[in-house]
Amino acid sequence: MFNFNYYTPTQVVFGRDTELEAGRLVKKYGGTSVLVHYGGRSAKRSGLIDRVKKALEDEGIQYCELGGVVPNPHLGKVREGVELAKANGVDFILAVGGGSVIDSSKAIAYALADLDHDVWELFAHTRSAVGCLPVGSVLTIAAAGSEMSASCVITNEETGEKRAYDDDIVRPKFAIMNPALTVTLPDYQTQAGCTDIMMHTMERYFNQGGTLELTDEIAEGLLRTVMKYAKILHEDPSNYDARAEIMWAGSLAHNDLTGCGAASGGDWTSHMLEHEMGGMFDVTHGAGLAAIWPSWARYVYKDCMDRFVQFAVNVMGVDVGGRTPEGICEAGIAAMENFYRSIGMPTNMKELGIEPTDEQIRAMAAGAARACGGSRGTAKLLFEEDFVKIYENAR
Amino acid sequence: MFNFNYYTPTQVVFGRDTELEAGRLVKKYGGTSVLVHYGGRSAKRSGLIDRVKKALEDEGIQYCELGGVVPNPHLGKVREGVELAKANGVDFILAVGGGSVIDSSKAIAYALADLDHDVWELFAHTRSAVGCLPVGSVLTIAAAGSEMSASCVITNEETGEKRAYDDDIVRPKFAIMNPALTVTLPDYQTQAGCTDIMMHTMERYFNQGGTLELTDEIAEGLLRTVMKYAKILHEDPSNYDARAEIMWAGSLAHNDLTGCGAASGGDWTSHMLEHEMGGMFDVTHGAGLAAIWPSWARYVYKDCMDRFVQFAVNVMGVDVGGRTPEGICEAGIAAMENFYRSIGMPTNMKELGIEPTDEQIRAMAAGAARACGGSRGTAKLLFEEDFVKIYENAR
Repeated sequence: MFNFNYYTPTQVVFGRDTELEAGRLVKKYGGTSVLVHYGGRSAKRSGLIDRVKKALEDEGIQYCELGGVVPNPHLGKVREGVELAKANGVDFILAVGGGSVIDSSKAIAYALADLDHDVWELFAHTRSAVGCLPVGSVLTIAAAGSEMSASCVITNEETGEKRAYDDDIVRPKFAIMNPALTVTLPDYQTQAGCTDIMMHTMERYFNQGGTLELTDEIAEGLLRTVMKYAKILHEDPSNYDARAEIMWAGSLAHNDLTGCGAASGGDWTSHMLEHEMGGMFDVTHGAGLAAIWPSWARYVYKDCMDRFVQFAVNVMGVDVGGRTPEGICEAGIAAMENFYRSIGMPTNMKELGIEPTDEQIRAMAAGAARACGGSRGTAKLLFEEDFVKIYENAR
Repeated sequence: MFNFNYYTPTQVVFGRDTELEAGRLVKKYGGTSVLVHYGGRSAKRSGLIDRVKKALEDEGIQYCELGGVVPNPHLGKVREGVELAKANGVDFILAVGGGSVIDSSKAIAYALADLDHDVWELFAHTRSAVGCLPVGSVLTIAAAGSEMSASCVITNEETGEKRAYDDDIVRPKFAIMNPALTVTLPDYQTQAGCTDIMMHTMERYFNQGGTLELTDEIAEGLLRTVMKYAKILHEDPSNYDARAEIMWAGSLAHNDLTGCGAASGGDWTSHMLEHEMGGMFDVTHGAGLAAIWPSWARYVYKDCMDRFVQFAVNVMGVDVGGRTPEGICEAGIAAMENFYRSIGMPTNMKELGIEPTDEQIRAMAAGAARACGGSRGTAKLLFEEDFVKIYENAR
């Protein structure tokens, strides 16, 4: 095991009708003038935005609002939010949505704390944040885990770059999680969310040097739980208890709990490769992860055999009888592909609906290499030529 | 499942040599004048207190110090700390020790934020806290979980009352956890700590109405991990990795993670009954819990059968073949008693070394009833006459 830091200051308020507490919580954390930030029309149409605004009004809190955040949220929308917030003296950003809306809110919060610099410099990693405004969320999609995480991923729609910036100072003050708000999600988005949740823990799980056994118990239990309830939601999308399991798993999968003691906090190569696909083809993040993971796993498992065997047995329930260690690993990866298929997720890029040319693959690999400074991976350290092969094998 | 709040703002800094970061962390959280609070002579003798003081000096932080905190920490020591802190303009309390030292520090922090009132009124539940000074810790005993919890338990040594007061505002700013600091603990204290850790999760586990399945996976995984590594430490007390597993389990067992979705946050009857034993006989807390739990479990299991069956199978590994549900529950409780014996813990009050008279049992039951306002329990709601019977059966 390795030394680790663990910091999850976000107050979670979980359960039915909890969105009615939005005003109380904004007030508790010092907000007096709020930017209510959201995505598409469904949050409006469902009445959720009105309920949240009513909760703010009941506490005498001012607000302005900005919708229209898209998946793989755009830098342009961030800039729009910054201008609106400046004009309204905003001191708190309230995200009502999923990971894209929360990430857009985090980027606005960074920008407002340092108006002399361009916020994209954070994502280009040419400077670090000096502060950020407080952020809170009313979560409507279980997937990204952004409601408790230090992560923020923004796409520069002019250059096609999708880049992450992580800093503990951006962890939200509170997260309101009402599983009932997620029951109307289309199945594809639900399952892409479940895939993303699992990947946040799998990225941490596959590493050299071990974690704590307690961390592994939590990670494996979380993965089994998500697989079970993803399948239930595939058949019965309005099941509240299943939505609750998935929603809480989404937060715990990415608040660092499932990586305590792991080297460098995990591998993260699959995420990095998917970010390039998202930047170039605007694919759904979780589906993109499902499309790239099997190729990555087959490329690296021989250099991280113990973990892939443990994963196959404890998570995928592979029967070891008569199998070689390699055979156990292969069976575990195949079982994960079968799971993806069972919930309607792709297992390669063609099934994802993209067919990149050789040139596009080289461009994505080069972009990934730039994003990670040349190499990445704790399961196996990989370089640009490896990224090319993993993309090619994922076709 | 039930709606829940989850709030764990404590920054955990875990691993070897992390005590050297004490100064940096105190400064980060605004401390300029620190009360260094600790227990017996071992923290001094080992050089730990000197290393912590050096870390404070390196950051230019002033400090005064107060040792002598005892297990079941005394109100008198809290009052002594308050006077010393007032005289030195203290604005941060740094606990160097285990749960007793951290709890004493928390009580001092409450008192300093409200000098017009007697701090015991919080523990007598005649008023609520209006604030508290920031607290941080360098943990030297894995047991109480106070390093991340909202709990604080103080004994009024004049009246023999041991009382808890819980408030989120007291959750420590940081917890420095170096497992190497715990390798010199005597086995009895190590195992009493492991028992306390397990009980913090078992109190949450035994309830009506279910939790989340994800919560159960985490709770069961934590219990299995603690049992495994408690036995390893019984044979090999200097095993760093085992100390690390137990130390991290101690924090997660009591930071509320293992109760998310449970009714009222859990049962807590065993803890309440042990508090009376601790107040009257000054027993080691974890050992007292081991002495009372089997009697409590046999008294209530028929009213909480599903959970006791699940516990027997998933945690204690009971083979269900041919057994009735009652038989499975009984086997699970017996297996826990066997585990206690295997690590040198008692399974009743005689083995604990106390033989209360009928009058003392009635006094403890009456004290417990006062402490809980007449009744307690989510596995089964119990009253004063039930407390008497559980004490009698635990003789």
